[in-house]
Amino acid sequence: MYIGVDLGGTNIAVGLVDEDGKIVHKGEAPTGVGRPFDEIIKDMAHLIKRVIAESNYKLEDVKAIGIGSPGLPDDEKGIIVFANNLDWHNVPIRAELSKYFDLPIRIENDGNTAGLAEAVAGACKGVDNSITITLGTGIGSGIIINGKPYSGSHSIGAELGHIIVEVDGIQCTCGNKGCWERYASATALIREGKKAAQDNPDSMIYKSVEGNLDKITAKTVIDAAKEGDATALELFDKYVYYLAMGIITIINSFDPSIIAIGGGVAKAGDFLLDALKKKVDEHIFYKDVPYAKITRAELGNDAGIIGAAMLGRLI
Amino acid sequence: MYIGVDLGGTNIAVGLVDEDGKIVHKGEAPTGVGRPFDEIIKDMAHLIKRVIAESNYKLEDVKAIGIGSPGLPDDEKGIIVFANNLDWHNVPIRAELSKYFDLPIRIENDGNTAGLAEAVAGACKGVDNSITITLGTGIGSGIIINGKPYSGSHSIGAELGHIIVEVDGIQCTCGNKGCWERYASATALIREGKKAAQDNPDSMIYKSVEGNLDKITAKTVIDAAKEGDATALELFDKYVYYLAMGIITIINSFDPSIIAIGGGVAKAGDFLLDALKKKVDEHIFYKDVPYAKITRAELGNDAGIIGAAMLGRLI
Repeated sequence: MYIGVDLGGTNIAVGLVDEDGKIVHKGEAPTGVGRPFDEIIKDMAHLIKRVIAESNYKLEDVKAIGIGSPGLPDDEKGIIVFANNLDWHNVPIRAELSKYFDLPIRIENDGNTAGLAEAVAGACKGVDNSITITLGTGIGSGIIINGKPYSGSHSIGAELGHIIVEVDGIQCTCGNKGCWERYASATALIREGKKAAQDNPDSMIYKSVEGNLDKITAKTVIDAAKEGDATALELFDKYVYYLAMGIITIINSFDPSIIAIGGGVAKAGDFLLDALKKKVDEHIFYKDVPYAKITRAELGNDAGIIGAAMLGRLI
Repeated sequence: MYIGVDLGGTNIAVGLVDEDGKIVHKGEAPTGVGRPFDEIIKDMAHLIKRVIAESNYKLEDVKAIGIGSPGLPDDEKGIIVFANNLDWHNVPIRAELSKYFDLPIRIENDGNTAGLAEAVAGACKGVDNSITITLGTGIGSGIIINGKPYSGSHSIGAELGHIIVEVDGIQCTCGNKGCWERYASATALIREGKKAAQDNPDSMIYKSVEGNLDKITAKTVIDAAKEGDATALELFDKYVYYLAMGIITIINSFDPSIIAIGGGVAKAGDFLLDALKKKVDEHIFYKDVPYAKITRAELGNDAGIIGAAMLGRLI
């Protein structure tokens, strides 16, 4: 058995996970950001013990603890170099958690743990090279090469939300301009939805929120597009085009076997996936050669726990 | 010893290469594109035998033959799926060359062999993850992950010339729009140089070719920029910006230890590299974390032979 910890800015989720990536038992506690890191990690340790105690297993059954962290974890040093939404800088998470457990502890970026989860137990099962893309507030990504999470030589890779799709384009939070997530995240879809609704009060987007533009979500826009609303469709087509161009960059560089799409926007299901596949097909480089299967990520919120736990399986 | 074959549209270059990637002896013959593939491969075999005969070694000293091919080689199947500038489709190169040699034969894309050469014996020596970028007619690329060439699950990866830096941008030969090589290859620099010269007959670019715009090369533009010509500098700055944005996409996805820049444009030396590094530094995501060293590729035209030979060392 393995323990997987999904460390987030709001909650810490912990799961006891078997060899095949199946969650046997899980639990959650508030992160309580702002407190000293040793207190947060103490709570994490207690939560791990509680989850094991509530299951039919014992601590002796656990082979390793894996942690999926936001920001920039450095597994070699056992620290989280920094994580904005935890307000952590150089936190020695392995040393701190080792005060409570005599077990191997691995840490990895939460994009990569989601990717590893899909590779072990989800949409990317059975292939060596896969990439999982999460379309949410930003674009998260997990890169699996030869069955292992890949984050490069300085742990700063696998930030596919920040590949440049438009030189000198929209300002990004990362300091650069034109990053993919500025055009293809849920946030981008909402931003464009608001603009379009404002300019087109006749559109279904505007009507479905009764003019309260702050209520517009990715679903508002996609539902209107599904219904054939012209304003929404135009916006959706443009969104899919940007999404596809990032996917093509991924294919032309990594050429994975499978690209799994998750996150809020992916809930649009085949309506999104079919449009995306069509656009990629139109613009792909090698027309007569097979390329990555594009599919929906399967594990949803559990991916964080599962992937973190599966880090222990790689030891 | 290893044999490296650099198969090009104009010439076939063959080298006898030692364990450390040093060329002991080399030779060249015209490819003679248009002839049946078995004739071309027969010539290749004769050239290999000649190169060995002219050296102090014997065929028995050779452990393997590696071939760097343009287009899309498939090492698993031992074929070249297709290569435009050879006019080859599904050529069984391994089976054909095996008629002449009882040796392991490996094939790989020529971008990746150049990358492997730099990793073994050039600018990227001593690190696990590196990427070599060749700025020529297009942009070639070689990706080395954990010491091995990486070309993905369908051999269509490592085409970094075709990452998208401008959605709906300039039409590319690959059928898509906005590919990096349309903005950051030598061809792009020449195209923009011609435009700028035409619009600015006072510029040094125009004067140095005495108004004969067809004589403009990448060097013409860069030399004028080095001299401080305003028109050339403006164009050069824009070129470097596009080049840097592709490099940032590479860092944010692959995060290699070293990025080596080769090809005709790289002959500009530190004038180019210093400007490029400055631009990357300004726009990099993680400001306080080390990222890839950007340096000049070292092996020039020999990279093709050396990298192909080193494929044999990986067996």
